[in-house]
Parts: sequence; C-alpha cells; structure tokens
Amino acid sequence: MAYLNENYLKLQAGYLFPEVARRVREFCEANPEEAKRLIRCGIGDVTEPLPRAAVEAMQRAVEELGHRESFRGYGPEQGYEFLRTTIAQHDYRDRNIEIADDEIFISDGSKCDCGYILDILGDQNKVAVPDPVYPVYVDTNVMAGHTGEGRKDGAYDGILYLPCIAENNFVPDLPKEHVDLVYLCFPNNPTGAAASREQLSRWVDYAREHETLLLFDAAYEAYISDPELPHSIFEIPGARECAMELRSFSKNGGFTGVRCGFTVMSK
Amino acid sequence: MAYLNENYLKLQAGYLFPEVARRVREFCEANPEEAKRLIRCGIGDVTEPLPRAAVEAMQRAVEELGHRESFRGYGPEQGYEFLRTTIAQHDYRDRNIEIADDEIFISDGSKCDCGYILDILGDQNKVAVPDPVYPVYVDTNVMAGHTGEGRKDGAYDGILYLPCIAENNFVPDLPKEHVDLVYLCFPNNPTGAAASREQLSRWVDYAREHETLLLFDAAYEAYISDPELPHSIFEIPGARECAMELRSFSKNGGFTGVRCGFTVMSK
Repeated sequence: MAYLNENYLKLQAGYLFPEVARRVREFCEANPEEAKRLIRCGIGDVTEPLPRAAVEAMQRAVEELGHRESFRGYGPEQGYEFLRTTIAQHDYRDRNIEIADDEIFISDGSKCDCGYILDILGDQNKVAVPDPVYPVYVDTNVMAGHTGEGRKDGAYDGILYLPCIAENNFVPDLPKEHVDLVYLCFPNNPTGAAASREQLSRWVDYAREHETLLLFDAAYEAYISDPELPHSIFEIPGARECAMELRSFSKNGGFTGVRCGFTVMSK
Repeated sequence: MAYLNENYLKLQAGYLFPEVARRVREFCEANPEEAKRLIRCGIGDVTEPLPRAAVEAMQRAVEELGHRESFRGYGPEQGYEFLRTTIAQHDYRDRNIEIADDEIFISDGSKCDCGYILDILGDQNKVAVPDPVYPVYVDTNVMAGHTGEGRKDGAYDGILYLPCIAENNFVPDLPKEHVDLVYLCFPNNPTGAAASREQLSRWVDYAREHETLLLFDAAYEAYISDPELPHSIFEIPGARECAMELRSFSKNGGFTGVRCGFTVMSK
C-alpha cells in the first residue's frame, strides 16, 4: 500500500486567514468609521500590472527563444550568469556588501525557496520563528515532519516561537536556549517592523556562538526608507558565516505573480 | 549547530553520465564507421527553438500582464483553469480518456514534479524502478532518505530494480514481491521501449491487488507512432484507482527549457 506523508494531517489549514477575516469583519461592523482606514495585513493581493520595462524585456527574451541562433534550451540550474552577476553587483557589491556572483541562486520565487531549503537541511534541527510572521516558515516545517502536533492556539509543539510585541518594538529577543535554525523576516511580514543594525548584530553574534543558521527573509527590503536600517543580513559583519538570505522580485515595482526570486548563500 | 540532510552524501553524483560518455568515446574510437550513426542516449540537449505559435502566445501573455485590466497577479497554485481545461479536453477526453479538469496540475516541469511528489508520499514506501531509467526517480528518493547506501555498481540498497533487458523486450516484468510505489516510464528514457496495452494492464492489475501507486512518466508519449500503443496509463481500465501520470511539454514541438509540465491525479 502506498503510504502518504501524514505530517500534512497536522496542518491547521485555514486556521490563520479565516480568523483574520473574521476579526476584520467584526471590527469593521462595530467601527464603520475606523474601518475606512483599516490596513489589511492578511493574505496579500495584487493591484498593479508589470511595468513597461519588464513587459518589453520579457517579450524580447521570448523572441530570443524563437530563433535557433539565440535559443537557450535548458538553462543552468542556479540561474543565468548574466542575471546572477547583475544581482550580485546591483543589490550587493554596489552597496558595499561582499557577495560573489556564484553566491546568488535564482528560483521560481521566494516562497518556493522557503520550502526547498528544507530539502537540504537535516530533520533534527531545533527551529525558532518570530511570532507573528509569514506562515510558510512554520507550515513547511510541519509538512517536513519537523514539528509535533498543532495546538489549539495554532502553534506547533517543537517550534520555538519568538514573540514580536510592543515591549520589544516588534523585533524578537534572542532565545534563552540553543536553537539550530532561526527564521528572521525584516521588514516583518505582517507587522512591517524593521530591525536595526544593532539588533541584527546581536542575532549574528548569537548565531556564531551557537553555530545557528539564520534564514533571513528580506522580501520587503525595498520598503525600507530609513537610510540607517540594513536591507540585507550580509551588511552585518560575520553574517557570511551564519546566514542565508531570501529575496523576492514581487514586492516592489509590480513584478508580482511571475514567479522569480533568489536566495543568497555565502560560500 | 544547523544540521544538513546527510542523505545527499549517498548520491553517487556523476556516476552515470561520465560512464556513458566514457563508453561512447571508447566505442567511437574502436568503431569509427559505426560511430557515424550512433544515437546518443546520455544527457539530453536541445537543438530547436520555440515554434512561432508558442513565441507569439507567450508574448501576448506577457502583454496581458502589463495592463491593469488584464493583469493576473498570483495565479492559482494548480494552474490556470483555461490551461487545465484545454489539457484535460485535448490530451484526455478527446481521446476517450476520463480525466476531469481539476485532475490536471500544472507545474514548472516534469522533473520538478518527480521530486515534489515525494513531499506528499510517506517515508516507508517500498519503491521499485525500471533499470535503466531516468535517474531522477532514484536520486530524488535518495535525497529524501528512502534508500540505503549506494553500492559500487551505482545501485542503492532499499530500491527494487526491475531489469529492462532484451529477454523482456525492455519492458520490466512484475515484481515477485510486494512494492508500494512503482515508477514506470513509457516510452522509456533512455531505451525508447514502449509498453503495450496488455503489459500496462498487468501493471494495473498488480497495483490494484497490492494497493501500489504507479507513477507513470509519459514525457515521451508524443513519439509513439503505433496506433495500438497507449499514450497514457489512464487508457487502461482500473488505472484511475492506482496511477498518476507525469507529462512534459518539452519533448515535442520544441518547447524545451521553458519549464512547464503537468501531473494528472485522478480523484
């Protein structure tokens, strides 16, 4: 008999977003005036089309594939060199961050990379996640069998939750105990809180001391306007030893839905 | 300390294809005349550009995304309805095969689906694969920890290999023992052997008796010219109970390298 991955049975599918929707609805009914300026932090949706430059570049790229002289066929699995070089230069080296072309890995989107990365990590890692945060970090660990059962409050046994609350300015404190893997997301999805250089330095120090891997999700870095705030974990000295970074093209410039992102892994 | 997936250490990376290359080179040196008509069955490569119809359709699709009225944003994760319907109709229902629109799952390619499917299957399945066959079936099971160590001959403990040899016309015989999961690939990559309706019926009977899941890779179905040979496992009565099918757009019509395929799972 073919067996299925029974970890999926632990998923509390639809727990989070229906609950968000329920509370939003109740709030709006009770507070019609304030409802007008409510900012919805539930499931993201898309409002803007691709910019002209992206449309035209994609059309030229498709045209290339239509001619024997310029057809590319199977691409390199890490992404095309021209793209890796451009990203490493523009997003990193031009900003004085040491990242080599071959430390950039192009993918079909940041959410996918969130899941894929677990394929190369071990099953015995103790995992910590900010709370609240993008639910994909936890759900992918549940599916991979890295957690216990789900609890009534929506949390899972075996995961260490790091509260993001008003008292810590929505930037989680270091855990008291040892963890092997920490997801960090700045600016945070959904709160928007960004971490300062000092706060990230403390995480890098923790990670180096504990040989912890920091999975740094910088999908929303383009929204940082304060020039003092770091956009990349690799702006922090020592991060090359302990961090990898997830980046998205979906969150700025209206590039959402075409499935392109990248991961940065230092050698 | 962050732990890695140590199953990757079992991978005998590069065992197969360098060996194919070595034997091809030796053969060609020893047989220069016969070498002229040698058909290379190693790693596939691409020679033809996308056909004009595909280029223009893709350019129109990109243009759609550039306008607010027609922008699509995040697509449905199973694939666009218009595509699922077209595939179910054209590839299945028009050929008298019972497949519903919502039994078609679009993906970024058949190789990817080969790997992804293991995410939803259990770790305790006894797996059988034809020998020789597309190496991805075995490698993904190795990475997922479903095998023992690699042996000197390139095979892995814990996998049941089903010989495809001249004596069985390169269509594997049913296993004597019970297995939970069988990969079948017809026309076979790399031998090209296709299975008859009778041969596939025996596999379906075996699968129904043993509650085995058949993973049927039909990537090369477009190369079947004999009208008696089935293109899909779902042409076989009873297959809806025990099979899923992987399909590729890469192998016919010069659509290689753009990462699109689909999987058929009956309800």
